This record gives sequence, structure tokens and C-alpha cells, in this order.
Amino acid sequence: MRNIKLVLEYDGLSFFGFQKQTRHRSVQEALETSLSQILNQKTKISAASGRTDTGVHAAYQVVNFKTNAVMKPLQLQKALNGVLPKSVAVKSLEEVSSNFHARYSAKSKIYEYTIWNHPIRSPLIASRSLHVREKLNLSKMRAGAKILMGKHDFKSFCSSNGMPQEKNSVRKISRFEIRKQGSIIQFRVEANGFLYRMVRNLVASLVELGLGKLEPEDLRKILKAKDRKRAGASAPGCGLSLVHVTY
Amino acid sequence: MRNIKLVLEYDGLSFFGFQKQTRHRSVQEALETSLSQILNQKTKISAASGRTDTGVHAAYQVVNFKTNAVMKPLQLQKALNGVLPKSVAVKSLEEVSSNFHARYSAKSKIYEYTIWNHPIRSPLIASRSLHVREKLNLSKMRAGAKILMGKHDFKSFCSSNGMPQEKNSVRKISRFEIRKQGSIIQFRVEANGFLYRMVRNLVASLVELGLGKLEPEDLRKILKAKDRKRAGASAPGCGLSLVHVTY
Repeated sequence: MRNIKLVLEYDGLSFFGFQKQTRHRSVQEALETSLSQILNQKTKISAASGRTDTGVHAAYQVVNFKTNAVMKPLQLQKALNGVLPKSVAVKSLEEVSSNFHARYSAKSKIYEYTIWNHPIRSPLIASRSLHVREKLNLSKMRAGAKILMGKHDFKSFCSSNGMPQEKNSVRKISRFEIRKQGSIIQFRVEANGFLYRMVRNLVASLVELGLGKLEPEDLRKILKAKDRKRAGASAPGCGLSLVHVTY
Repeated sequence: MRNIKLVLEYDGLSFFGFQKQTRHRSVQEALETSLSQILNQKTKISAASGRTDTGVHAAYQVVNFKTNAVMKPLQLQKALNGVLPKSVAVKSLEEVSSNFHARYSAKSKIYEYTIWNHPIRSPLIASRSLHVREKLNLSKMRAGAKILMGKHDFKSFCSSNGMPQEKNSVRKISRFEIRKQGSIIQFRVEANGFLYRMVRNLVASLVELGLGKLEPEDLRKILKAKDRKRAGASAPGCGLSLVHVTY
């Protein structure tokens, strides 16, 4: 069997998340339907680097699947882009060694979270951001991000929502940058892996820091508690984008 | 009567253009409905700086209206933003002198047009851009933009589509910049006024230049012909944004 790796970009608003569901439109379903149609045989994907939730965008999502089909990579990519809904595109497609696994082979993933920090909402970036009216204190949020960096048990920042609980909730954040340009604040987080809703939960807590509802040092206590109830709510999915995966 | 000037931002995809129509949702209708509701009296706008078409976005659209209502500007702005659909926002609102007219008082307007110039479509910017697969020749497009600058009769670039014909189709383009960042090409055009679909028609012709279907010098002939049939088709509305109006 050939093992094919592909990089996807998609608009999260058009799908109910990456993972296939019975009743709602998902990226996985769109991809498998198109693959099966083009290769003229039922084709399922083996893995994705991560399952993005409803509303979460991807500028760079990696998927792999196995096939006996002989179609050339460039030809398959073009055919897929011709058949897939406009809200998803195959940015690249290549044959890889049989042991490549989009999820298990990933060394790190990078997510970006965007906040529109202005008293008045911005309709033009509303579908790509969280709107926070009150001015956020950047240096407090940066101090918080610094505390979150490194290897920690992030159980307090892992939502459960009916998802199978991860046995091991220790992850290592190797990068946590917060940049501001005009009224746009962008978080960029890189880690060796992410728990369910981890980025959205971390961002929500940093926003509480920025609003003065928490102090940076409180994050240490929340981490230590290993209790989801201790951290803030989840920030909405539409502000989040998966932007890179390294292998 | 007080004369109120307001600056709007809106997502063009949510409306069938700015101008009120019988059967479709427009920005004007949304604004007049909200104003009438808040001021508790039937309120119509006097003018907008320009009527953006279906799909065209605005980061900065200026509107004025007259009212006897005594509500303070900041209060009215907040009330409007609370009532208006999420796809439109009032960025600022102030009382101005009685002779201010959003359209006639405008000295110049600036539009931006965005092209995603890459063999593969980008779902994340699709609703804000035109996708051109073939590599565009930037220096040819810039040479064309240079020819279009200055005072000309732009009749060849004015669509009619059932719109009342302008008596005078002479306009002065004071700026026509083309910037490229990665695969994004952005046109920025400033003029003392624009004919119906003028920017979209100019951009379409510049794209033909970029594709080698026209030479920069051909633009002089097209301008001289004063005949709409001589220029290219219109570029789609979703790539266009009204970004500033000067008074």
C-alpha cells in the first residue's frame, strides 16, 4: 500500500470540525468522499495531526491515508481540489514512507489564536477572532504565557466534554508568543501535543489575566490543581487556527 | 435638524450591496431599521459616500442622516451597535455641520482590491479575494496602473447594468499602488470619485496585463475608445473593499 501525506487548508466555519460525525458536515467526510470518488474505491484516512473542533480553522492540517491506487501525486492533488468543497483545499500531496503517521509522527504543532481587542466589534475579522472590548494588559498576559511554557501537566486546561480522557496530560510548550498589531492580538503556541481544547482554555485564562481577573502567579496554582474547574471557560473556536505541524 | 455622520464597517458577503432594494437584505435597510427603532421615529439616511455592490466589503464607509432626536452621539453609536446585525458595525458617530453630505462633500475615496495569486485556492481568504492561478507579471500591472493614473475619461471602465449613466465620466486617480506580499497582491486606488464598477473593471484589465493578454500601451487605446466593450470583464465584488473617504 502507498502511504500518502497531504496538507489541507480549510475555513472552520464551513464544517462541524475535522472528525467525521453522523449528522454534520466534517472535513474528514468531505475528504474521504472526494478521495473515494476520484480513486474509485472506498478510501478512509488513517490519521490527521489533530482533530480541530467546530469553527476552528486550519492553514496547515496534515493528514495521511493508504491506497493501492497508482495515480500520480500532482494529478491526485489537482483532482481533489477540483472535487472538494471550496472551503477546503489540498495545499500539497506527496507519497511518504509507510511508517509515517500524521498524528504519531508529529514532533510539534503550532496554533494561532486571534483576538480583536477594541471597544467596537470588527465585522471584517469577526469570523477569525474573539472580540474583547476591554483593553487587555499585554505584559500580564506575556508573564502568564511564560509561566505556561515548558513541560507541565495541563490537566486543568483539558476539557472533557464526552471526549475520551487522555491518560497522560503532560505536554511541553516550546513557544508561546503574544504579538499585538493595532487592535489585533495574536497568540502563537507550539507544543509537542495538545489536549482537548487546551489552546482555547489557555487563551481564556490569559484573557482573564489581561483583564486583571487573575494574576500571572495564579496560573501556577491552576496548573498544580490539575482540575479543569479551576481554569477559565474555553475561548470560542473561530479565533483558533492550526498553522503548522513539524515532523 | 441635526446632521449626523457615521463611519461603518461591514462584511459584504452578508448583504446584497449597500443600497436598499425591495427583496434583498442591504446595509442601508439594516441601518435605517435600527435607527428608526432606536430613535423611535422613521429615519432615512441622506447619503452614503458610495453605493458598494453585492459582496463588496467596507472597512470605512461614510453615511450621514438628519434627525430631530436629541440622543448623544456616543449613546446612539452604542445603541446602534447593540441592535445592528453582527456583520455591520458603527466605527464612529459624530454631529457635523448641516451642509456635510457623505457623497458630495467627499474629496476622495480609497478602494482596495485583493488577489490570491497562487496555483491552489486559499479557503481562508477566498471570501476577501479573487483567485488567479497563473502567475501575474507585477511590473506590467504597475506600468498599466501608471497609465491609468491622473485625469481621464473612464467611460470604457464604467459598467451600465441598468444603472443611470453618469453625464460626466471624467475622474482623477491620484494613487494606484500595487503591493505583493507572499501570494497576495493588493491594489490600492484613490480617486476623487468612481464610476459604477470602475475599480473592478480597472482591476480586471490590469489582470489581463499581468497575464500577458494585454500590453500596458493597450490601456491608452481602451481609455481613448470611451467604449465599455473595449475593456475586460468585471473582477468579482468579494475582492473589493472601500477602505477610506477623505473630506
